[in-house]
Amino acid sequence: MFRRLLTLDQAKKLIDDLGLVALGSEEVSLREAHGRILAEDIVSSLDIPPFDRSTVDGYAVKAEDTYGAEENAPVYLKLAGAVNVGEPPTVGISRGETAEIVTGAQIPYGADSVVMIEDTEQKNNIITILNAVAKNENIMRRGTDIEKGETMLLKGQKVGSREMGVIAATGRAKVRVFLIPSVAVLSTGNEVTEPGRDLPPGRIYDINAYSLMGAVFESGGKPIHMGIAPDEEAQLRETLEKALSLADVVVTSAGVSVGPKDMLPQTIDALGKPGLLFSGIAVKPGKPTTMAIAGRKPVFSLPGHPASALLMFHLIAKPVIQKVAGRDSTEINTVRAFAGKRMFSAKGRRTFVMVNIDRDRRDRLVAEPVETGASGAITTLAKADGYLEIPENLQFIDENDEVLVTLLSSPE
Amino acid sequence: MFRRLLTLDQAKKLIDDLGLVALGSEEVSLREAHGRILAEDIVSSLDIPPFDRSTVDGYAVKAEDTYGAEENAPVYLKLAGAVNVGEPPTVGISRGETAEIVTGAQIPYGADSVVMIEDTEQKNNIITILNAVAKNENIMRRGTDIEKGETMLLKGQKVGSREMGVIAATGRAKVRVFLIPSVAVLSTGNEVTEPGRDLPPGRIYDINAYSLMGAVFESGGKPIHMGIAPDEEAQLRETLEKALSLADVVVTSAGVSVGPKDMLPQTIDALGKPGLLFSGIAVKPGKPTTMAIAGRKPVFSLPGHPASALLMFHLIAKPVIQKVAGRDSTEINTVRAFAGKRMFSAKGRRTFVMVNIDRDRRDRLVAEPVETGASGAITTLAKADGYLEIPENLQFIDENDEVLVTLLSSPE
Repeated sequence: MFRRLLTLDQAKKLIDDLGLVALGSEEVSLREAHGRILAEDIVSSLDIPPFDRSTVDGYAVKAEDTYGAEENAPVYLKLAGAVNVGEPPTVGISRGETAEIVTGAQIPYGADSVVMIEDTEQKNNIITILNAVAKNENIMRRGTDIEKGETMLLKGQKVGSREMGVIAATGRAKVRVFLIPSVAVLSTGNEVTEPGRDLPPGRIYDINAYSLMGAVFESGGKPIHMGIAPDEEAQLRETLEKALSLADVVVTSAGVSVGPKDMLPQTIDALGKPGLLFSGIAVKPGKPTTMAIAGRKPVFSLPGHPASALLMFHLIAKPVIQKVAGRDSTEINTVRAFAGKRMFSAKGRRTFVMVNIDRDRRDRLVAEPVETGASGAITTLAKADGYLEIPENLQFIDENDEVLVTLLSSPE
Repeated sequence: MFRRLLTLDQAKKLIDDLGLVALGSEEVSLREAHGRILAEDIVSSLDIPPFDRSTVDGYAVKAEDTYGAEENAPVYLKLAGAVNVGEPPTVGISRGETAEIVTGAQIPYGADSVVMIEDTEQKNNIITILNAVAKNENIMRRGTDIEKGETMLLKGQKVGSREMGVIAATGRAKVRVFLIPSVAVLSTGNEVTEPGRDLPPGRIYDINAYSLMGAVFESGGKPIHMGIAPDEEAQLRETLEKALSLADVVVTSAGVSVGPKDMLPQTIDALGKPGLLFSGIAVKPGKPTTMAIAGRKPVFSLPGHPASALLMFHLIAKPVIQKVAGRDSTEINTVRAFAGKRMFSAKGRRTFVMVNIDRDRRDRLVAEPVETGASGAITTLAKADGYLEIPENLQFIDENDEVLVTLLSSPE
């Protein structure tokens, strides 16, 4: 069996070299597109506004008819009709004429500017212009907001509130978005029991399947809960094969008990070609992290400790799921903070420290290390807002050093 | 009709005084709880770990049996049996005895510590202890991570990946979360046409319903699309009444054409008691923003300009939807940046400037104002990452001043 302990950078490079791409795309109603990733550029098929449009309530005129008009020397124009909003003009104007118009209505034929209603007086069919306008004044010309053919949004952009509005403006009611990858999540280990069941003596409840399902959502995937795989090679393999048939990506986490040391890597390697990509990364914590490719599908085996499993998911599995989801995997959620105390690295290994973020009395963000030892797996999970990284060549990060913290959950 | 033009702070105070609360709660499967808001404190119903647990692979012993043991003076213990992970121990040990144990397994009766396998040698049924251990060494005592009765998560917390793991650890498969409020979204105005239809002359496509539906998702609500209400009082009222019967909150945005100036506020006021809360806020842009309460349901009328509608949604409607969703409405998404140029306020009015955020050559975040004038409604929407606020008493914000920008969409 191919087995290598890689540095984190080597592991990431191997993953990059796979050249993973988005699964495919589907057309959805714009109403349902929120949170999805565009699988097409949005190009406007029309000028916006689609016609010359008044930006005020007032009177459409030929500007030259108003030249020199002022309060003491008004100009008198003949009212030729009115233009309503939402309707094409049924009136045109000639020299000496004007048409009533409201904000948003189309400029009638013959007019080249609009006098604001405040600068006019109305009496019968004679409109008194008290102020001159320049050509194009108070008009928004066709296509000045967006021109037909203009690219408004790019493939890969996430559809949020603003993007929904922009797409609607072009008249599109449907939009092509990337498929959401399904991610099978399973736990292994004889000591874990499904929440909701009675807890037999000597057992603990499964944590990882749930935190990892949450992390799958936060990566742009849709989790499929496979439950707990029995700690026996043939059954484990059967469960993994089922997971592989149901999902685009498989994520397992190891119970501490999982059999002979190499059982999981071996079983995962045997799922399909090309097989194991790496088994073991020189990081602390998270060393046993394993990844294989079966066909085109990535399969991950993460550590059993809940905080380590979530950390390694973020470092290794999340970028892969994001890529398969068509998401920009550089879309990473970080905050700058100050180290609350000195934090040491593990000798020669890239070290990650789980931290809790809080504000100090000076309103600075402070990152306090959270114990990841065996003494508090769930406490760690509950408290760790994110993690910081100590490079291999650094012995420690000192108190008050500025650090970059990657958040484990998105704020919203 | 009751009509007041308020300052933004007065409007917010009136809303606060309503004492709006979450709609109610429902029990959902933990698997489906991601993104929901806890409607209960999560209190552990068990000790975690639920038993004294070995943190290493090795041999469970009475510590006193090992005292003085070292490589040159080992201690010999009789192997009484083995404890597997996930099973209650079937062996107990007496003085002079030991039991094989693996990480995560329950400490057998009679043992008070574990010697790591590296510090032992095995031959037949005799285990050679090469290193002494202290009482409790390599044992995680029952309840040291979480004690039964300990409050682990609080009502109002959002369920993310970590929270899912923490809840699972307590053995819960269901969890009580706040109901998701439904928010009816409708547009008004004779000039707007539904995207997906042909655009008649003189018309533009409806933008606001779509950007506001997106904003509803981002506020923790579920939008109900009511389409475009006809610009006629009886029909508008009928559509609003239908919206009110279907949803918990109603959000309208005005087409520029909406009839006689007071038609929308009057119609909204007439929907139910107590009626209009305010109609008009002294802000720029967004002055015509109106809010009423019909029964217990908030009804909003927002401006027609897409960027202004989205801005006023954020300032006024979002905190209300968040409250009704049981969310912490202080959960606001801001970044600090430097003003890219001088930005002026409107005289005596709280002014909001839509800004685009980018990095400059020195890698600083810079907020550049985006034109909100009539000249580019959609361009504004596409470019404005957020907004900044200029207080009533400030004439301008100067170039390079540090500013706080509230983001219009969440980053994830």
